[in-house]
Amino acid sequence: MLSEFDLIKEYFQRPRAGRATLGIGDDCALLTPTPGRQMAISSDMLVEGRHFFSGADPRKLGHKSLAVNLSDLAAMGARPVAFTLALALPEANRHWLAGFSEGLFALADEFGCELIGGDTTKGPLNICITIFGELSPGQALRRAAAQAGDDIWISGTLGDARLALAGYRIEHKLDPADLALAAQRMHAPSPRVRLGVALAASGLAHAAIDISDGLVGDLGHILAASKVGATLDVDALPAGPVLAAQEQALRRRFTAAGGDDYELCFSAPVSSRAAILALAAAAATQVTRVGSIDSASGLRLVDGDRRALDLALAGFDHFTA
Amino acid sequence: MLSEFDLIKEYFQRPRAGRATLGIGDDCALLTPTPGRQMAISSDMLVEGRHFFSGADPRKLGHKSLAVNLSDLAAMGARPVAFTLALALPEANRHWLAGFSEGLFALADEFGCELIGGDTTKGPLNICITIFGELSPGQALRRAAAQAGDDIWISGTLGDARLALAGYRIEHKLDPADLALAAQRMHAPSPRVRLGVALAASGLAHAAIDISDGLVGDLGHILAASKVGATLDVDALPAGPVLAAQEQALRRRFTAAGGDDYELCFSAPVSSRAAILALAAAAATQVTRVGSIDSASGLRLVDGDRRALDLALAGFDHFTA
Repeated sequence: MLSEFDLIKEYFQRPRAGRATLGIGDDCALLTPTPGRQMAISSDMLVEGRHFFSGADPRKLGHKSLAVNLSDLAAMGARPVAFTLALALPEANRHWLAGFSEGLFALADEFGCELIGGDTTKGPLNICITIFGELSPGQALRRAAAQAGDDIWISGTLGDARLALAGYRIEHKLDPADLALAAQRMHAPSPRVRLGVALAASGLAHAAIDISDGLVGDLGHILAASKVGATLDVDALPAGPVLAAQEQALRRRFTAAGGDDYELCFSAPVSSRAAILALAAAAATQVTRVGSIDSASGLRLVDGDRRALDLALAGFDHFTA
Repeated sequence: MLSEFDLIKEYFQRPRAGRATLGIGDDCALLTPTPGRQMAISSDMLVEGRHFFSGADPRKLGHKSLAVNLSDLAAMGARPVAFTLALALPEANRHWLAGFSEGLFALADEFGCELIGGDTTKGPLNICITIFGELSPGQALRRAAAQAGDDIWISGTLGDARLALAGYRIEHKLDPADLALAAQRMHAPSPRVRLGVALAASGLAHAAIDISDGLVGDLGHILAASKVGATLDVDALPAGPVLAAQEQALRRRFTAAGGDDYELCFSAPVSSRAAILALAAAAATQVTRVGSIDSASGLRLVDGDRRALDLALAGFDHFTA
């Protein structure tokens, strides 16, 4: 039987040391911070049956577990450095471990983010990653920094992950090819690290958040923290390629309050428009202007003709959902 | 019903900001490292039914969840700075949350260790803490630093936590008052932070580890990492007050391979003896010499007369236990 130590050695300990002074295999990992930089730290816990289906493809799960954490760094504008992984597993299954670690390390290597430690134990499947990034003091994209008059921008596209969930749940009938395409967005989100880091370094943007629980709910956190309101043009929201072909009501609902998008929502002054488009092009990431920050509190949803829309949307909450 | 955001606000967000530049309530926490210091990072995951009994007192659980992480910093000699908490809960129960957060913060305040972020979700009870400490470069107490001829030292006492487990499991009959006393060690370990930090800062010790899975197994990690062996005087091991009154065979077994002790095992040159006793007294922590590091590999267990003992002990492993 695979022991805890063999498991770590076989699947998670890698031959070449990176940034860490001391990595896996001591009481703590040791990291030497870059002089003059701040550390950005975020922790996400993924639970089977809650954040992913039971029996989910372990390779995709490895990718997604790290992607949601990288997305938090992106929303702050921090460059990824390292992460810890704590894992509760019902059993030490080699197939699962091989797939999970492969998906995890493929994404970690893409962003030069090193696994420096963690924990493994037996228990109901639970994946907890804590991630560390660096940025220069004063550059972080904070939720509280939105200003009245700012444009609201969205990276990439929204709603295909939520559409895939609707397809799986048979809330909405989807062609199998469409479901497979939409499901890629659900299983393998692309954290917008390059865009977030470039925005923070440029000083062009004010506030940012990553969209994990639906745009309306997550934008609401920016509005509350910044003590401002906003007007959102729901018909300007960039729908994912599969959702874009669905009817308008579904498109509006799933772009405005889908969930699992892992795109960035950020605010920036009107004077930054051209520079933001250039910066996004350099980061090979699509960005779309979808509304504006208002001094009056509250979130106003409008259609393409600026008529008020009442969509009765809510962000996702783990304890009331 | 208590929402995820209310839960964080009511039980985990505290009025006064500490060391963190930005704490709970953004995509990431921001921490400004002390110039010239290294960061020590450790992550532990506690699972219901595995690391604690179902229905365990939430206040004690809050203490223990942080204590096991503080113990990892102590074993490295790092001063606690901050931690993140990721929590999966079957339900948002106010009684549980109030008790857990009270136990957690009481210990956190004792060591000036600030909660800076985390995650909450619904799921089988699982507590994952990632802790951050600081130390000066070159001072960390590493597992790989033991040298032949070193004394082996143990802080505090061993075995009472394991004795309590035996009492609960009715493997061993214990008087109720004795069980209650031994159980304090199981539920509320005292992380040896002051001792660990003082040892690292003094440069007196070579290697260290915290004893979580039983001394023999954990000392084995030092021996493997340092490519040395050791002789351990089992009868010199300091038994906890309840275990000390039990018969010799049980005393030997539970001090040598108990588990859940959260004491430090460290090695230091013979020339450091007097200085270590003085340093431990200043840290108000008992320390006991229990053996020595050998150049010959392997761990030799001996009794008070240096006769070989064969106790057939094993460290705890989560996937083969």
